Amino acid sequence: MSKILAINAGSSTLKWKLFQMPEETVIAEGLVDRLGLSDSVFTVKYGDGKKESTTGDIATADIAVDMLLKKLLELDIIKDYNEIQGVGHRIVAGGEIFSDSVLIDAAKLRQIDHLAEYAPLHNPAEADGIRAFSKLLPGVPEVGVFDTAFHATMPPVNYLYSIKREYYDKYGARKYGAHGTSNRYVSNRAAEMLGKDLKDLKMVTMHLGSGVSVTAIKDGKSFDTSMGFTPLAGVTMSTRSGDIDASLVSFLMQKLNITNPDDMIKILNSESGLLGISELSPDMRDLEQSRETRPQSQLAIDIFVNRIVKYVAGYIAEMGGIDVLVFTAGMGEGDKLMRKRIIDGLSVFGAKIDDQRNDVMAQERVISSDDSKVDVLLVPTNEELMIARDVVRLSK
Amino acid sequence: MSKILAINAGSSTLKWKLFQMPEETVIAEGLVDRLGLSDSVFTVKYGDGKKESTTGDIATADIAVDMLLKKLLELDIIKDYNEIQGVGHRIVAGGEIFSDSVLIDAAKLRQIDHLAEYAPLHNPAEADGIRAFSKLLPGVPEVGVFDTAFHATMPPVNYLYSIKREYYDKYGARKYGAHGTSNRYVSNRAAEMLGKDLKDLKMVTMHLGSGVSVTAIKDGKSFDTSMGFTPLAGVTMSTRSGDIDASLVSFLMQKLNITNPDDMIKILNSESGLLGISELSPDMRDLEQSRETRPQSQLAIDIFVNRIVKYVAGYIAEMGGIDVLVFTAGMGEGDKLMRKRIIDGLSVFGAKIDDQRNDVMAQERVISSDDSKVDVLLVPTNEELMIARDVVRLSK
Repeated sequence: MSKILAINAGSSTLKWKLFQMPEETVIAEGLVDRLGLSDSVFTVKYGDGKKESTTGDIATADIAVDMLLKKLLELDIIKDYNEIQGVGHRIVAGGEIFSDSVLIDAAKLRQIDHLAEYAPLHNPAEADGIRAFSKLLPGVPEVGVFDTAFHATMPPVNYLYSIKREYYDKYGARKYGAHGTSNRYVSNRAAEMLGKDLKDLKMVTMHLGSGVSVTAIKDGKSFDTSMGFTPLAGVTMSTRSGDIDASLVSFLMQKLNITNPDDMIKILNSESGLLGISELSPDMRDLEQSRETRPQSQLAIDIFVNRIVKYVAGYIAEMGGIDVLVFTAGMGEGDKLMRKRIIDGLSVFGAKIDDQRNDVMAQERVISSDDSKVDVLLVPTNEELMIARDVVRLSK
Repeated sequence: MSKILAINAGSSTLKWKLFQMPEETVIAEGLVDRLGLSDSVFTVKYGDGKKESTTGDIATADIAVDMLLKKLLELDIIKDYNEIQGVGHRIVAGGEIFSDSVLIDAAKLRQIDHLAEYAPLHNPAEADGIRAFSKLLPGVPEVGVFDTAFHATMPPVNYLYSIKREYYDKYGARKYGAHGTSNRYVSNRAAEMLGKDLKDLKMVTMHLGSGVSVTAIKDGKSFDTSMGFTPLAGVTMSTRSGDIDASLVSFLMQKLNITNPDDMIKILNSESGLLGISELSPDMRDLEQSRETRPQSQLAIDIFVNRIVKYVAGYIAEMGGIDVLVFTAGMGEGDKLMRKRIIDGLSVFGAKIDDQRNDVMAQERVISSDDSKVDVLLVPTNEELMIARDVVRLSK
């Protein structure tokens, strides 16, 4: 009987889930929001729908983790810190160093710090989380689970940009992708659902959360993915632009009197995508609700679908075929209209949705029709479980 | 009997062809290279393979055009300036103003000048060319033929980026595309070759020159195209990167100590693409020759093919099918290996090349096999002829 914590630390958030392993049940979970800002919110859910929330400044990851562990004791979720036998941390950028999850030691932690240049908002926060746990739970194994690791198998033809070779050799400028942990989970689960070996399937996964990515999986490995050097690239997302003409960066900087290119990239990351097109909301639910009365909402939906369809089609061509299409994450799990639009857009490949099967939310299910040439699956993702499993696997 | 000049002015070049219309024969052609620089080269070809070339500073378009016209007299190609009954000018950026070729007047010329912000190296040079001819051939109709005009039919879902709507409304930040004149020519020619109405065909054209673009043509109109706000976007080109993660602009500026984003965009335009990946040459012929001994040359070829295949596949999906694939321009016309690689990459759509039919250079021909589900055509492009035809059409 062991308890494992899965941690997802962002620039001003710390999400956690406490798993009972090997049962894989969630005993408690919570969120520290506005971490490092004023009026931080500390929330914990446990038992049968019990929930506690407190507001007050939480200045550092150390304080947040201390609060979290004390709260677990106080609520009698654990009797002793020793019950926690491992902590797994989601880490955004693993660069070319980490092609799998790893047990963290001082050298690995330095590497994670060093990779901050590829994920300046995330890696430092994640390293802080690791340091906080190692102070409060000394000797407890900590595992780093990298968002990029699953994509380490991409071939150079797909991960290299058509830029000067030395930019890759010297600075690591290449496609790394993201959502790797989610992809690892849903691709394996999809193969299990179909009773097939993942290695025998040509699969495209669509992770449609607030970040959106499309991934080609061949021979059981990531073959190509739509996010790029950073998560900015690829398809339209909630607030990210996805692919644009790079010359727009300099053109818009001049128009907007922006002198620091980072500020332009921030706009492309946080004020663009569905929000930018619709001028209403980054949340697809708001666009679905308003699309009949607001042409801009419909346009944002249409662009979103179009970009995903084009990426999926490109991946089908470069794999030379397709067996399985997988929807996952927020919209992928919750928006049946969106799933239908996308599969309708892929009719040239013989993919067909079954409206009745598709009338479901966040539930594992085959949603293609019997005469579809491609299996279409809905597979709710579970990155935290994947993290907990990696902790068990690596801390043995 | 009328003679029409087709002019293609670049930032330091002025290419010209003199057509006999309506016969559509080329009487003479030439190039002013290094215009505005030192040691300019003035070349003219005429008659049965005769060629003249002189070197010496040519400071302005006025001087170049004066030389060109005097040379036509001197070589007895024309007896009098009056024989030239129209001049057509290729213009790179027509923005949203020009959706067809137009007779140039003072107001139109101002608009072309004003559109320079979308093509800072080209539009000013092209406007200079127009001014030079109107001085030396007063009263002769001049026609502007815009590279972007053919793409004016794209729907918003394809021409809008997923950025803040106001960037389009205020600054015209959208996809304009290029190679429109080439696309207009080859798409019509392809339909003629097949004895079909262009309006009934779903077509993808691949213009594979030093600039490379892929265009989806549906209902006889441009539906989508790979070049973007500028020709930088889309697939890998000779020296242009095509699509990259926009955040690389700021990342690489920091690494390279570049402070002006325009300088970074210049590198992406002129030192990237095949040249950047191969570290050898922007010319596919050099890469074909060296690919067996230089892995980087093979990699550049593989990336080039991959990006084109992905774009074509995306366009086939968004059109809901494909009837005709067309190769044109330098590599499209001259590199049979490249054509084969690309069609092999599109096998998922049932496209098959016939190796014997494909064993041809720059010649109009169907090159798909009899059992191919898609007609694959080689159609040599002829932008200058299209310009001459537009001059005749609009100056009547």
